[in-house]
Amino acid sequence: MVEIAFNHATVRERADMLEFLDLCAERGVQYVSIWGQEIDKVGEDVALRRMRELGLRTLGYHRIGPFTDKGLSEAQRELERAARFGADHVYLFTGGGLEQSHIAGERARVEQAAADLLPAARALGLKLAIEPLHPMLAGDRSVFSTLAQANAICDRLGAGTGVVIDAHHVWWDPELDQEISRAGAADRILGFHVNDWQIPTRDLVRDRGMIGDGVIDLASMAHAVRDAGFQGPVEVEIFSDKWWNEDPGVVMDIAMSRCHDVFDAI
Amino acid sequence: MVEIAFNHATVRERADMLEFLDLCAERGVQYVSIWGQEIDKVGEDVALRRMRELGLRTLGYHRIGPFTDKGLSEAQRELERAARFGADHVYLFTGGGLEQSHIAGERARVEQAAADLLPAARALGLKLAIEPLHPMLAGDRSVFSTLAQANAICDRLGAGTGVVIDAHHVWWDPELDQEISRAGAADRILGFHVNDWQIPTRDLVRDRGMIGDGVIDLASMAHAVRDAGFQGPVEVEIFSDKWWNEDPGVVMDIAMSRCHDVFDAI
Repeated sequence: MVEIAFNHATVRERADMLEFLDLCAERGVQYVSIWGQEIDKVGEDVALRRMRELGLRTLGYHRIGPFTDKGLSEAQRELERAARFGADHVYLFTGGGLEQSHIAGERARVEQAAADLLPAARALGLKLAIEPLHPMLAGDRSVFSTLAQANAICDRLGAGTGVVIDAHHVWWDPELDQEISRAGAADRILGFHVNDWQIPTRDLVRDRGMIGDGVIDLASMAHAVRDAGFQGPVEVEIFSDKWWNEDPGVVMDIAMSRCHDVFDAI
Repeated sequence: MVEIAFNHATVRERADMLEFLDLCAERGVQYVSIWGQEIDKVGEDVALRRMRELGLRTLGYHRIGPFTDKGLSEAQRELERAARFGADHVYLFTGGGLEQSHIAGERARVEQAAADLLPAARALGLKLAIEPLHPMLAGDRSVFSTLAQANAICDRLGAGTGVVIDAHHVWWDPELDQEISRAGAADRILGFHVNDWQIPTRDLVRDRGMIGDGVIDLASMAHAVRDAGFQGPVEVEIFSDKWWNEDPGVVMDIAMSRCHDVFDAI
């Protein structure tokens, strides 16, 4: 049976972090990905204690950045908090800088900022996750849109970096299979996020589909990720007004059922 | 001074094809791209006569497809109409088939359909334009999302095929410059569509920006296209509720002014 993790974003509109952690524990989920802003809402000490009581482990911590002057000054503090939560990896938010620059220059600037952060991340035992985001979010939320770019950055920056593969963001990429293999060969796949792409998609951010409700060949993608050597859980991450309006426990039950349908055989 | 062409889509909500042609002629525009459904609205004979009276030339004809059974049976008829309008190239609509298939299979199926159409297009003196559409439209309106894919298809299908480079669709692509060069080296660039990408973009289809209102480095892209040997006009193509609500002549004047600002020096 596939191991399933949850990203808090999937239910964040109706379940605060403590409720989310309880819902995970009730369902036997062991791994979660978490958000700094959600920790702030409930208090770090309380959130940390609840995680320990429930025996939950942190996969990814959102997020380091934006890489503006203010974001950079906060990055060290965010890294330290991610380490306190025992995160495996931290997400870089690389958008937000295109008002001052064109995308080529911004890519170089953000990569340098990541390189500058890397020693601190390594010292804390955290990996920097380069997650290519869908090209419709280019400039706004990321300057990196393909797994090929993410792999190239990891090649240049070296140890302490890795990639996260999110189905919604990369399913359209004609180079996907080869870049998953490349990432696997370098042992740098940090996470595999599952969701779906609906036709039509009505919003650039808030209309992801539930696993199985869209057109992504999730089984093939999961095969490619497994064949590349990734042994971690599939992580459910769905940003969706539709699903945010539903009962969080029900959403998680549906997602788990769909994950078993699609991924158990892989 | 840059030569400017207009795609009827830019003003289609408030100017039918005849009005559009008049507006072009009044502004000294010589090249237009046209749509079969807009021809139907005013009548083919009337549209053809107006084009001839005004001395206008057709760049692109929209569209051949979708490549469903029904679309294929209509393709020959559409090709013949495009030829009557003296089109340089015809656009393939490659979306709409993902309900039955996954994207990898659909890509192969559509490419085969294009190969099957090619002899008829060649006989009519029409080029089949492969226009990569933004990945947010993958499956819905196209199964081809990158210029690398379009180039590869042209490599395989050979004479009578080419690519159209639309800024809004490809600006995010990290491989853009090299793929523009590759297309130019093969002498297959059929068109260069200009518009802009706004942050935020509020709709996947109907929120393109006016040239200069967004974050695309249009000057660099135009340099790359010119350096690749393309000598044709820049073609204004803006799908936008905002601009569709404005007076069509005013929209065209603004677009022409912006084109001169950005492209005259290139």
